[in-house]
Amino acid sequence: MKKIAILGSTGSIGTQTLDVVSRMPEHFEVVGLAAGNNVDLLLEQVHAFKPQWVSAGNEALADRIRAEAPQGVRVLSGEAGLTEIASHAGADYVVCSLIGSVGLKSTLAAIEAGSDIGLANKESLVTAGHLVMDKAKRRGVSILPIDSEHSAIFQCLNGEDVSTINRLIVTASGGSFRHLGREELTGVTVEDALKHPNWSMGAKITIDSATMVNKGLEVIEAHWLFGLPYDRIDVMLHPESIVHSMVEFVDTSVMAQLGNPDMRVPIQYALTYPKRVVSPATPLDLLKQGTLHFKPMDFDRYPCLLLAYEAGRSGGTATTVYSAANEVAVARFLRKEISFLAIERIIEDVLAKHAGISDPDLETILETDAWARSEASASEV
Amino acid sequence: MKKIAILGSTGSIGTQTLDVVSRMPEHFEVVGLAAGNNVDLLLEQVHAFKPQWVSAGNEALADRIRAEAPQGVRVLSGEAGLTEIASHAGADYVVCSLIGSVGLKSTLAAIEAGSDIGLANKESLVTAGHLVMDKAKRRGVSILPIDSEHSAIFQCLNGEDVSTINRLIVTASGGSFRHLGREELTGVTVEDALKHPNWSMGAKITIDSATMVNKGLEVIEAHWLFGLPYDRIDVMLHPESIVHSMVEFVDTSVMAQLGNPDMRVPIQYALTYPKRVVSPATPLDLLKQGTLHFKPMDFDRYPCLLLAYEAGRSGGTATTVYSAANEVAVARFLRKEISFLAIERIIEDVLAKHAGISDPDLETILETDAWARSEASASEV
Repeated sequence: MKKIAILGSTGSIGTQTLDVVSRMPEHFEVVGLAAGNNVDLLLEQVHAFKPQWVSAGNEALADRIRAEAPQGVRVLSGEAGLTEIASHAGADYVVCSLIGSVGLKSTLAAIEAGSDIGLANKESLVTAGHLVMDKAKRRGVSILPIDSEHSAIFQCLNGEDVSTINRLIVTASGGSFRHLGREELTGVTVEDALKHPNWSMGAKITIDSATMVNKGLEVIEAHWLFGLPYDRIDVMLHPESIVHSMVEFVDTSVMAQLGNPDMRVPIQYALTYPKRVVSPATPLDLLKQGTLHFKPMDFDRYPCLLLAYEAGRSGGTATTVYSAANEVAVARFLRKEISFLAIERIIEDVLAKHAGISDPDLETILETDAWARSEASASEV
Repeated sequence: MKKIAILGSTGSIGTQTLDVVSRMPEHFEVVGLAAGNNVDLLLEQVHAFKPQWVSAGNEALADRIRAEAPQGVRVLSGEAGLTEIASHAGADYVVCSLIGSVGLKSTLAAIEAGSDIGLANKESLVTAGHLVMDKAKRRGVSILPIDSEHSAIFQCLNGEDVSTINRLIVTASGGSFRHLGREELTGVTVEDALKHPNWSMGAKITIDSATMVNKGLEVIEAHWLFGLPYDRIDVMLHPESIVHSMVEFVDTSVMAQLGNPDMRVPIQYALTYPKRVVSPATPLDLLKQGTLHFKPMDFDRYPCLLLAYEAGRSGGTATTVYSAANEVAVARFLRKEISFLAIERIIEDVLAKHAGISDPDLETILETDAWARSEASASEV
């Protein structure tokens, strides 16, 4: 029986994690759930999974939970609540599926507490990959990727010696606007952007897929997770999203993981690794699919990906700036304050203004994050 | 330093094995080489690799070797020579790359001697899978597949629990005549058949690819190598021969191994497993390839594959008959005695006449093999 805590339980990954867990009641006990504002869903989850620890976005929301939760449940709130659950809920395994840089502190706290980590929060590695991986190593904690791409790579590396990797090949669908040229992106709307062709995901990640920032974040994550330099991490366009990523080895063999786009598969793998168990996902029918296409990445069409490689190669605080500026820009786009193409201009603008700091500590990262958010909020590009 | 013997050193797999070995002189010492009639090439190999044991197809050919080989080399001949090298050359590792059922006795002898086996001889498993796998288990010997399809499956199973396999998906190019319908196969020639679209291979296997007997043999081999029933081994047409085979697991994940069609990659993997080392093969350029196609197997177009499944499911001596009848029929086609379509009619005819024997011992298998050859030679279908 694995004791599990989920940080971000009401989001897309959180709810799918609970779906997976609910099918294996003999293997998992949910000991902690943390969410933001969606108190109705959080309460439903509390009643269904009976965790001992719960945290909501703020005290007012926590009070609503307290009023309705079963007796004996500890109800916390805010960032302190996240960290408290990460540290003290007694979880063997913490799923970090918060969105944005708010996930960093609780990821670090969960590692410090010695829990294995199912990592869906991209920003933990993007903004503080060196701190996270170093702490995980020192604490003897496993970081299991939940992203479909990193899960695919992780599966391709099963039983392999990482020193024989030639390169990682991360696939990218191209996002909602993959059929549009750059000149056609000027007037695209939030509604258009939220129609991802293959995956059902949250709003932020769907926009990040359209800008290719999502792939940029994944490249940076892959760099930290698998310890490879950026010139050995390639991105390939693969519109069908069937091949979730690949690894090329020194003997020219390429291992690939394929499947229908269903996040429950990588979530489940991260939970049950090294075992595989029966999944509710629909098995892949390659014969129905018939054809798979692979096309070169076009950095002119997707400049945000190029910015990610540049930030990654710069190292230090550059990736924090990349991620934070994007987070604010996407929020502004979703609020219809700025146009779709302004997202990339804001990231570029804030990165250009930033004087990088190498090997930053947590405080420096958080200061840089705040600075980049402030710049991105004010940016009028 | 691994001591290696190659049975069938002048054939397509044998020469490519020596190519691979020659690039890793610090890892391999060739202690034995056995071949059939190509004495000129065998002598060249003897001078280049300096084995202590050599065997040629018959005594007259062996005498030619004796006249020119360096002093101290033991030169043998015929089936006794093969068995002697398999048993007594002191090899840690024996590559069984003989073509046809002649490979069986020496494969068994090498296993009995405790050598690990690089298996390219399909007939060893097809005609006596139960004896080979049982003996390998008892002797604690590893059977490492050299076929690209089985190597792909073997690679997909790296670090995996075989009890979580859902099915194996063996890919098939469709062979030289894949663009022709059945009605167009009547007048095809030996020369047409020998033009395999993707792989450079020997004559017999190239014809077997065109009839799909090769895939039938591979399905039977996969059954023995990976211990799965026939209804969990599927064949899919994949004309590009880039995905060499796949494994679907219970969690719906599909692992695939991809690469350019170059037998040196699976040969090398079988030799260096579990390590991967740099290969002379050209790395796969999926972007140049661009598109991969997958189509359902058409058993009406390729009845020989259906016959293989039927023989496999019958078990016992049926697969021996399938393989032996095919071997004779292909030889007759290559001698231009019979038409291309007569190959399948001969296999079907001899199988229909055969009264199957279950759990046969080696003697029964060899008797059945001889009977099937005699029937196939006389068949006038």
